[in-house]
Amino acid sequence: MTSPLAPADDGALALLGMVAYGELGAFARLAADSRSAPVLHQRLALARFAGQALTHLEQVSGRVVELGGDLEATMHPFAGVLTEFDRRTEPSTWWEQMLKAYVGYGVSDDFARVLARGTDPHTAEVVAGVMPGADHADFVIALLADAGADDATLAARLALWGRRLVGESLGAVQRVLADHPDVARLLASALPGEADPQQKLFTTLTAEHTRRMDRLQLAA
Amino acid sequence: MTSPLAPADDGALALLGMVAYGELGAFARLAADSRSAPVLHQRLALARFAGQALTHLEQVSGRVVELGGDLEATMHPFAGVLTEFDRRTEPSTWWEQMLKAYVGYGVSDDFARVLARGTDPHTAEVVAGVMPGADHADFVIALLADAGADDATLAARLALWGRRLVGESLGAVQRVLADHPDVARLLASALPGEADPQQKLFTTLTAEHTRRMDRLQLAA
Repeated sequence: MTSPLAPADDGALALLGMVAYGELGAFARLAADSRSAPVLHQRLALARFAGQALTHLEQVSGRVVELGGDLEATMHPFAGVLTEFDRRTEPSTWWEQMLKAYVGYGVSDDFARVLARGTDPHTAEVVAGVMPGADHADFVIALLADAGADDATLAARLALWGRRLVGESLGAVQRVLADHPDVARLLASALPGEADPQQKLFTTLTAEHTRRMDRLQLAA
Repeated sequence: MTSPLAPADDGALALLGMVAYGELGAFARLAADSRSAPVLHQRLALARFAGQALTHLEQVSGRVVELGGDLEATMHPFAGVLTEFDRRTEPSTWWEQMLKAYVGYGVSDDFARVLARGTDPHTAEVVAGVMPGADHADFVIALLADAGADDATLAARLALWGRRLVGESLGAVQRVLADHPDVARLLASALPGEADPQQKLFTTLTAEHTRRMDRLQLAA
């Protein structure tokens, strides 16, 4: 977790490492989703979303290099985070799997977006640029709308699953803040003047989650 | 399997559909390999190879559109081929998995390369352009050289696995030719003057396989 750069840049590299790991995880998850998709059309769409995650990873890598860092070294400290999250949220149906990609990773994207406010403008721009496109959201919304529209039981189960996912996601965020002092410091710089930055962060993440569940017409 | 184009173009679309499915399969396989790679460096390398397969898929898609075809429609007839191949060649170790990506898909690449000679020059160029880069071969060679150098038992097991893979690959090629008359016709145009194009094809594929196993310093 040490870096050859001045302490001021440590936060940026930590954020980029965290985002890079998130993109690698999203790539792996979306590729696995593509493989298990029931029809070719969905296989192709999900493979392309996985490809976008990989493009994002390269963009983050570019910024790491500009800051004088090393991609793998910045990623390493975040190796265990997603593994633990994935272990605790193994989807049991195709719908749960789709919801996980949208809701679970949505929280970590929002987390990165908040942290980016504490970095230099260039890093903040790179992080803002690697957030998933609207096309992925639209894909999941269309898919779940088809499924949930006529099936109240499925909709209720997915709403429950959404709550489980957001709970586990917030737990993962909490573990990152506890285990990575540089990220916790970055959060404090990102939310200046907040007496309790973590409290403010969790309020923001929960509000964004509710907005996402609303878009899916599922109860948050 | 019908196409809106003149019969002369059917072969090109069939080949492109087969190659596109191969790239989607390679993408899924390499992404899964990335996920199960023991170290981050290998995870990243394999994710990037998966990304290349996706780029190839888009290039093939571009040519399908130029020919007035539809990507999904051209891919559909080849849906079962890789599923069956994958079912029959489930790797039991990380090394077997790595060898499969190199040797198994190597045969299908060589098959595509031979068929491309029977298409218009533009399609042939696209197909030639989507073959895996030398970097993937180098990655597998380095990995297996590390493993096999000091372990004669492992080397012997991998040589056996290589023979199994090439046998199953040639079986898959044979099924494609039997099930897809447009591909069989394309093979005949690709190898003009050959009394028995299939015999010639299998000689070529076997020779290329031997060359690959030699590069890995494994007995073919």
